[in-house]
Amino acid sequence: MSIAVRNIQRADSAVVARLATAGVATAHEAQQRSGLLQPYMRPVYAGASIAGSAVTVLAQPGDNWMLHVAIELCQPGDIVVVACASSNEDGMFGELLATSMRARGVQGLIIDAGCRDVASLTDMKFPVWSKCVSAKGTVKATPGSVNVPVVCAGALVQPGDVIIADDDGVCVVPRARAAGVADACDARILNEAAKRKRLAAGELGLDIYGMRDKLAAAGLVYVDSGSDL
Amino acid sequence: MSIAVRNIQRADSAVVARLATAGVATAHEAQQRSGLLQPYMRPVYAGASIAGSAVTVLAQPGDNWMLHVAIELCQPGDIVVVACASSNEDGMFGELLATSMRARGVQGLIIDAGCRDVASLTDMKFPVWSKCVSAKGTVKATPGSVNVPVVCAGALVQPGDVIIADDDGVCVVPRARAAGVADACDARILNEAAKRKRLAAGELGLDIYGMRDKLAAAGLVYVDSGSDL
Amino acid sequence: MSIAVRNIQRADSAVVARLATAGVATAHEAQQRSGLLQPYMRPVYAGASIAGSAVTVLAQPGDNWMLHVAIELCQPGDIVVVACASSNEDGMFGELLATSMRARGVQGLIIDAGCRDVASLTDMKFPVWSKCVSAKGTVKATPGSVNVPVVCAGALVQPGDVIIADDDGVCVVPRARAAGVADACDARILNEAAKRKRLAAGELGLDIYGMRDKLAAAGLVYVDSGSDL
Amino acid sequence: MSIAVRNIQRADSAVVARLATAGVATAHEAQQRSGLLQPYMRPVYAGASIAGSAVTVLAQPGDNWMLHVAIELCQPGDIVVVACASSNEDGMFGELLATSMRARGVQGLIIDAGCRDVASLTDMKFPVWSKCVSAKGTVKATPGSVNVPVVCAGALVQPGDVIIADDDGVCVVPRARAAGVADACDARILNEAAKRKRLAAGELGLDIYGMRDKLAAAGLVYVDSGSDL
Amino acid sequence: MSIAVRNIQRADSAVVARLATAGVATAHEAQQRSGLLQPYMRPVYAGASIAGSAVTVLAQPGDNWMLHVAIELCQPGDIVVVACASSNEDGMFGELLATSMRARGVQGLIIDAGCRDVASLTDMKFPVWSKCVSAKGTVKATPGSVNVPVVCAGALVQPGDVIIADDDGVCVVPRARAAGVADACDARILNEAAKRKRLAAGELGLDIYGMRDKLAAAGLVYVDSGSDL
Amino acid sequence: MSIAVRNIQRADSAVVARLATAGVATAHEAQQRSGLLQPYMRPVYAGASIAGSAVTVLAQPGDNWMLHVAIELCQPGDIVVVACASSNEDGMFGELLATSMRARGVQGLIIDAGCRDVASLTDMKFPVWSKCVSAKGTVKATPGSVNVPVVCAGALVQPGDVIIADDDGVCVVPRARAAGVADACDARILNEAAKRKRLAAGELGLDIYGMRDKLAAAGLVYVDSGSDL
Repeated sequence: MSIAVRNIQRADSAVVARLATAGVATAHEAQQRSGLLQPYMRPVYAGASIAGSAVTVLAQPGDNWMLHVAIELCQPGDIVVVACASSNEDGMFGELLATSMRARGVQGLIIDAGCRDVASLTDMKFPVWSKCVSAKGTVKATPGSVNVPVVCAGALVQPGDVIIADDDGVCVVPRARAAGVADACDARILNEAAKRKRLAAGELGLDIYGMRDKLAAAGLVYVDSGSDL
Repeated sequence: MSIAVRNIQRADSAVVARLATAGVATAHEAQQRSGLLQPYMRPVYAGASIAGSAVTVLAQPGDNWMLHVAIELCQPGDIVVVACASSNEDGMFGELLATSMRARGVQGLIIDAGCRDVASLTDMKFPVWSKCVSAKGTVKATPGSVNVPVVCAGALVQPGDVIIADDDGVCVVPRARAAGVADACDARILNEAAKRKRLAAGELGLDIYGMRDKLAAAGLVYVDSGSDL
Repeated sequence: MSIAVRNIQRADSAVVARLATAGVATAHEAQQRSGLLQPYMRPVYAGASIAGSAVTVLAQPGDNWMLHVAIELCQPGDIVVVACASSNEDGMFGELLATSMRARGVQGLIIDAGCRDVASLTDMKFPVWSKCVSAKGTVKATPGSVNVPVVCAGALVQPGDVIIADDDGVCVVPRARAAGVADACDARILNEAAKRKRLAAGELGLDIYGMRDKLAAAGLVYVDSGSDL
Repeated sequence: MSIAVRNIQRADSAVVARLATAGVATAHEAQQRSGLLQPYMRPVYAGASIAGSAVTVLAQPGDNWMLHVAIELCQPGDIVVVACASSNEDGMFGELLATSMRARGVQGLIIDAGCRDVASLTDMKFPVWSKCVSAKGTVKATPGSVNVPVVCAGALVQPGDVIIADDDGVCVVPRARAAGVADACDARILNEAAKRKRLAAGELGLDIYGMRDKLAAAGLVYVDSGSDL
Repeated sequence: MSIAVRNIQRADSAVVARLATAGVATAHEAQQRSGLLQPYMRPVYAGASIAGSAVTVLAQPGDNWMLHVAIELCQPGDIVVVACASSNEDGMFGELLATSMRARGVQGLIIDAGCRDVASLTDMKFPVWSKCVSAKGTVKATPGSVNVPVVCAGALVQPGDVIIADDDGVCVVPRARAAGVADACDARILNEAAKRKRLAAGELGLDIYGMRDKLAAAGLVYVDSGSDL
Repeated sequence: MSIAVRNIQRADSAVVARLATAGVATAHEAQQRSGLLQPYMRPVYAGASIAGSAVTVLAQPGDNWMLHVAIELCQPGDIVVVACASSNEDGMFGELLATSMRARGVQGLIIDAGCRDVASLTDMKFPVWSKCVSAKGTVKATPGSVNVPVVCAGALVQPGDVIIADDDGVCVVPRARAAGVADACDARILNEAAKRKRLAAGELGLDIYGMRDKLAAAGLVYVDSGSDL
């Protein structure tokens, strides 16, 4: 059945802003190393970094019809997340759809399929994370759904979940956990700043993290040279 | 049998220029979504955009001998298209061959194998679309053919066909169809300009393309919220 | 058994400097087309070019504990080479470890797994060649080894071997052969400079390398046009 | 956080039996072409066909500790479904674990990682669907979770969902929908039996399904020979 | 444009029978190592070996509509060859279509996409070579073409070309060359029979093929032991 | 430089026989989870299980010349191990070479490339583990080496090392360690037999291996139902 859900609950914008600052790697760690989309999801240009609420799309392979349906249901700041009913690399998204999304205030797109017009997208600074770049055109023949739960690049995304995307990839934070994860990110950032200072001064992680005893207990043996093996 | 064909028919240069302006995505659509090479063919640097007549090469795996044969048969504006007799990722092409090709007026290279010296190629602005970057050297031991029909990255390329390549990938337009495809590109570009303006103003594709009735007929159902499911 | 070898023999720094100048493609050819890591090893940003002695790490999948052990054993100019006990794409290395390595004078990292914080690594110009970019965090639970022979991306690397890495990929030169390979590189660079000049002037490789007779002997046949086939 | 949930709701055994009869392809179609795990999930031997309630495992890469935790929580007829926190191909499961699972009445295993001892598993007829066959051993160092929702090979699996697996792959049917899907399977099987009879007698799908007008409307044109193109 | 060509020229049935006897590896060699489809094309069960005239299909990704169109245009002994407009792994073909094809005398199917119902296909001995096994269902929404030239798994197939398929994969022989290739196969089979006898008796290929001098000329050096290196 | 080493040291035949009995998974564990070739190395037919001393071959991509050189240097019981100078999937080995190897007493072949004539190899029971099945023919144009150290499918293999291969894949045991690994295998087999008996009787690994406290210490928490989360 093809469904488009008009209204979804979105995450608090202040929380989203804090998660944007944290970035993908920190947010992923802060929610106990979960929520990461598979690493084949890459940005079409370097340097973009966004966070926002997910409007989800389940598309058919080689068919981008539902992206048009999704745009009408977007609000400023949203990020559109496109999953595909089966593995597909076609260029479902390009500059015209980006123009339309920008007009509605959409920040960017995550798509488990191909993307095209990457030179234009780079010029207009509309960021896309995709499985690949492909100019392959698509049909508009078979409907899918909008704002239903989807599995995108190996991660479950519910409509309204927070999406964070930067040069390291894409991470999803469930809406209900977003504030807690933002808190954990802040703590993590503080902690890392202290560690960074000590590491930059030449202290070793072995000492800062107290690893030496644990390594010995786990069986690590030091020898002076390879000829001792 | 190893064959090198000296003379091929090339596309009209005015038509080639129009296809260069259109670019890969538009040309691919304009010939009814055909002619695209597989999306694993990526440029070694961003921003290049070329079109020209194909001089085709069928090379043996790990052997770049025929590229030397091909260069002699090139004319200014040509694009060399290298297919491989079996899947291969070796670095068949680098800066010396690029220097030689540039001296003959060749615009760029499409190779279903590896490419090396990418820093030099980027500096000299000689564009290459390849399966991968690899420094792996090759031998010159077994001949292949030049200017015979080849299947390159999943697409049939005949000598003299028009090759278009940009950041979106690579597209081949059969020589006999080139003028017609250029016309279709022009129409498409005009049409897209009008659409872009309306989309940028916030009109929806759903309305511009009259999709609402078709979506309903195809079974799309709108609900107000996910709890209605 | 988990072993960390404290002292390794390193290559002569003058030889390393000559290999750095030669670069990956030349060094690989100069040692008879051997020593190249698989082409999936790509730099996280373009333009870096380094050479140095290898400090090797054998890590467990999803576990970056041994990188901390390795740092203590590094000397200025070293390059850390991380192999994984089984195929893994997790983000084992990021900005904090890079900060620590830089403080010890490490030049860069080669890792047959994932890398994260690529925006920061790019800003601080700490070069990494990796299998992929991934923010996936790792544990510190199971020890591996440091400074033992490893197979990294298909190439055998002994501790103290010379690693060369640039935009074309990564090459390993066995320490004992390093001076000889540097000599061969110099000869090759001279030879290529002469060839480049002639090719740029429009001479053909067919003539410079005397290929015409060999091609005919190998069975290559020229025809005037495709209709002669 | 590592969690093991002791009690889960399972599907009705009569419904499970009906879905077992239907098989993967039919059940997948009957729930509107959803629920299929990615096609890289293959049986270690041909001919097995099972259905049962899912006991889910989220494992760390290269670590099979949680499979031991899962076994205690299984009931006769269950199928263990193992997802991995990041992409992994290690041999997390073999004959000893199969012996233990069989003793508890487990029917089979679905694992988005590697499997080993395949000759023994074939002899003892314990069916496994896995990403690959690999003898690579794993550690027991970092806990994951049991009976939490997981994404396995691209599909969301909740504890207690029905898993169907045969030579065509693996399909998940949400527990709440299982009875309805079983009804739809029965209708589909009846309908296919009638179609099969007509097709075997030489009638064409074009006529049975009334496709001729739709194809013409969609633009299909018949020509007598290729020379008419 | 979607086209179905009703009448195609087929290869001589006696020639087809001789190519069937030769098999894929011999025919591929006999036409100078050309015509092989990529090795990812595997039989769904072992032991089938067929040859016949190709009825070609160009299908859309995730859409098997044109297979129904193709069946009507088949004759006894034909082999249906399905290429896809873009990379796709969905299960486009199963037992019902096989039943229909068998009723029309079709020998088997080659499909650059997925196949399902493999247990049934094995039982009914209807051989299929496919990219993968997948139960993923497809739509019938967008027409493609029948009996036009297609690129299937990297090889150009014209309608009426001879397809040979066995446990080694799939090979295409252009119709016009079929008789000549069959002759070359016969010569090759005779030659191999003589070689096999000598090799089985312990003679070395080095001597039978006179390789020793050529190897020495090419630079091969024998040493007595590794310590001589 | 191309080298063929005539004489190599082989492992003790009694030790080899014990490793053959142990099989790949046990031997890999017994040498501390090392020595496994990558899991893409699969047998061309199920059920074969061999062990023997390695005669190593370094071949050029698409070139099987050195296999002929290797055969002369084999002794009864040897296993030929073929690595390739760069990634290649061509069918370098088939029934004629198998006939020749069998005449010399070779037990089987491990090849990091393609294999063909798989129906014949299955009939004659000559086992091959390869990267893929491919009928693609190869040339004999560029020499490689025989009995030099090679990296095959990610593992270092020295001439004379013990190779073990069965349905689980391929493992290499360094010759000097072979006797010790065989001892460790025997101990492991005894230990597993005891474990198997207890597991078959319904005892849990949690109790047999004393895992409960360690899991609790590592943070695993049991809850009664998912609604407690």
